[in-house]
Amino acid sequence: MSEVRDKALLAKQAAQAMNRLSTEQKNKALLAMAEALIAGAPHIIEANRRDLDRGRAGGTSESMLDRLALTEERIRGIAEGLRQIAELPDPVGELLEQFERPNGLRVEKRRVPLGVIGMIYESRPNVTVDAAGLCLKTGNCVVLRGGSAAIESNKAIVALLKEALDRSGAPADAIQLVEDSDRGSVNEMLKLNGLLDVVIPRGGAALIQNVVQNATVPVIETGAGICHTYIDDSAKLGMAVDIAFNAKVQRPSVCNSMETLLVHEAFAARSLNELLQPFAEAGVEIRGCERTAAVLPGIKLAGPADYATEYNDYIMNVRIVSGLDEALDHIAAYGTKHSECIVTESGANAERFLQEVDAAAVYHNASTRFTDGFEFGFGAEIGISTQKLHARGPMGLPALTSTKFRVYGDGQTRG
Amino acid sequence: MSEVRDKALLAKQAAQAMNRLSTEQKNKALLAMAEALIAGAPHIIEANRRDLDRGRAGGTSESMLDRLALTEERIRGIAEGLRQIAELPDPVGELLEQFERPNGLRVEKRRVPLGVIGMIYESRPNVTVDAAGLCLKTGNCVVLRGGSAAIESNKAIVALLKEALDRSGAPADAIQLVEDSDRGSVNEMLKLNGLLDVVIPRGGAALIQNVVQNATVPVIETGAGICHTYIDDSAKLGMAVDIAFNAKVQRPSVCNSMETLLVHEAFAARSLNELLQPFAEAGVEIRGCERTAAVLPGIKLAGPADYATEYNDYIMNVRIVSGLDEALDHIAAYGTKHSECIVTESGANAERFLQEVDAAAVYHNASTRFTDGFEFGFGAEIGISTQKLHARGPMGLPALTSTKFRVYGDGQTRG
Repeated sequence: MSEVRDKALLAKQAAQAMNRLSTEQKNKALLAMAEALIAGAPHIIEANRRDLDRGRAGGTSESMLDRLALTEERIRGIAEGLRQIAELPDPVGELLEQFERPNGLRVEKRRVPLGVIGMIYESRPNVTVDAAGLCLKTGNCVVLRGGSAAIESNKAIVALLKEALDRSGAPADAIQLVEDSDRGSVNEMLKLNGLLDVVIPRGGAALIQNVVQNATVPVIETGAGICHTYIDDSAKLGMAVDIAFNAKVQRPSVCNSMETLLVHEAFAARSLNELLQPFAEAGVEIRGCERTAAVLPGIKLAGPADYATEYNDYIMNVRIVSGLDEALDHIAAYGTKHSECIVTESGANAERFLQEVDAAAVYHNASTRFTDGFEFGFGAEIGISTQKLHARGPMGLPALTSTKFRVYGDGQTRG
Repeated sequence: MSEVRDKALLAKQAAQAMNRLSTEQKNKALLAMAEALIAGAPHIIEANRRDLDRGRAGGTSESMLDRLALTEERIRGIAEGLRQIAELPDPVGELLEQFERPNGLRVEKRRVPLGVIGMIYESRPNVTVDAAGLCLKTGNCVVLRGGSAAIESNKAIVALLKEALDRSGAPADAIQLVEDSDRGSVNEMLKLNGLLDVVIPRGGAALIQNVVQNATVPVIETGAGICHTYIDDSAKLGMAVDIAFNAKVQRPSVCNSMETLLVHEAFAARSLNELLQPFAEAGVEIRGCERTAAVLPGIKLAGPADYATEYNDYIMNVRIVSGLDEALDHIAAYGTKHSECIVTESGANAERFLQEVDAAAVYHNASTRFTDGFEFGFGAEIGISTQKLHARGPMGLPALTSTKFRVYGDGQTRG
């Protein structure tokens, strides 16, 4: 037995006991986990220091080290996240449909836990806690496979969480951490049909593509975001600037930030300079189509490879289009079905954009940065689904459930 | 370009036009398809004769030939199925959630088509029409890859359906039939990420396993059913016989039929002979555990391989268990999460069974044969999902949709 299979089996064996926990028991366990993190903070920080030292010695960048670093304050924030999950309504058991058939059969469709969830993610140790908390609240077991850069932090955190589960009467085996940092352990996880009910990757494009290409277990694909903002002819200049600037600059490193700005040619003829001025001032590198370059000489020309890149950085493409049709074609060609925005005063154009763009979230006159579980009011999210099956967009607690039909009869047989 | 990729691309290019069709336009197209099948019946029957002749020459069994055969009456029944789909409510556009955020953003979650659905199935040509009709009603395009045994029938049917789409103003490219009968065309379909949004296999265990093992496109797994009926101590004899007999014998070839009968030892001590008598009279071969064999000497002993087999035939396993716990353990070990039944007069035992058994449909005092779209009142179904993501159990029209968040703002940006 390998470590991965061993731990997935332990998780599966705990699934029935998890399924039996009441909402009160789960909330009690979440609060115990929060307390354990705070009480154990010095221990976590010590383990985290070993990760940081190893990273620094290995030449990890300062920005990556900052993502990895845990302080007392950050740990308090992470623990507070668990308390917030305890406050959210429990989706398990929710009655979704109920009907009686002419033969007297009573049918109920209720939410049930998925079972065992595999999480594959990169460096930030807060994902370890978020995922464990969201899975616990939904009655699921979880097999965590975080990045090797955070392994000492994750071991310290998971040991504390398991103790807290145990103390509060929940099965400690419900949370499993894969410690084997070999890539092979990921690829083995992806094929554990019968043990894992779903795998959720969270991280960069390479991680997600590896999961999509190699998993035989069902996957919920998350994350990749090449998001567009289209400024229509009738857009108000001030609103166009505010929305596009926010979408690019407020936090460029995340999936719902803008990569390409599409501008109606009539709008561009009037106001391209005013539209792009704030970006230049903020140090955003602009790559543009030939018509953009005619206005801003000296910029790098944007080609298909640029339009297909998720920069996650202070870089953006600008393309002038003949109108809504060309904007829709561009988004269909380069979008990743995440979040797309039109800024327009035309109700008809807005309606066509919202209807025809194929994406998890489509916006009229608001920044794509709002595609987020907290912003939608769902609370903490396990990720943002960019696929069309099961869940699409920000995934709140219900996305971590399945359903079951319960059928009540008094001897019915099929004729 | 291969045929498969070519046709998937045509389907994808038609997806936007399909997404724009109104419910009325889709219903008109469904009725036109039904008429076209009836008007073209002689042509279909002629093509079907070529399939039947080829099958007969190749040694296909009579029961398989019967499944493949089309008559005027069967074609009328298939066309009637399309008319029934036209009568069903259209899920596309349905408002699932609506809320306003404190910053004034209005968010709507509405059903949208999945896009392009790949169907991979075996011989029966009625699946060709059912799948085309269900996909059309939900605004989806479909790439059909049926079994080679029915290729002439499928070609004739699809030609008629495409003509009907065209005549009624719907895009004819929305229905594509892969004619290449090589196994390679299936495996190529399974990797068309970006062209196909989902693949749905329908057929035997080998076909489904090939899809699950090789697809990088998201899959909805259907069909495999090792279903159990557990007769509890307190079950009424008459009801126990009726339900178990119906679950096994009414139509043994389907996925929701029973493969293993589990019997409480106290019930068995009182009534095993009466319980099994009707099965013997109906010619069902019984394979049993050692305790069953002690009562019915001469039967084949059932072992793990038998318990793990979906017979789809007049064969069943009988196992005497010490009680509910052992029954639950057996089902957890051998069930395929399809449909499971308890016959009992104990409300507490029924509740535990319904709660703890992990399956798409769980029954108290009713036959597992009811797991079916028509029986649940959903109308025609594209299959019965045995996975936990997206859809579980009989899949009606909503299972062929995804969702989209539409967000309406007036200039909101994220702080």
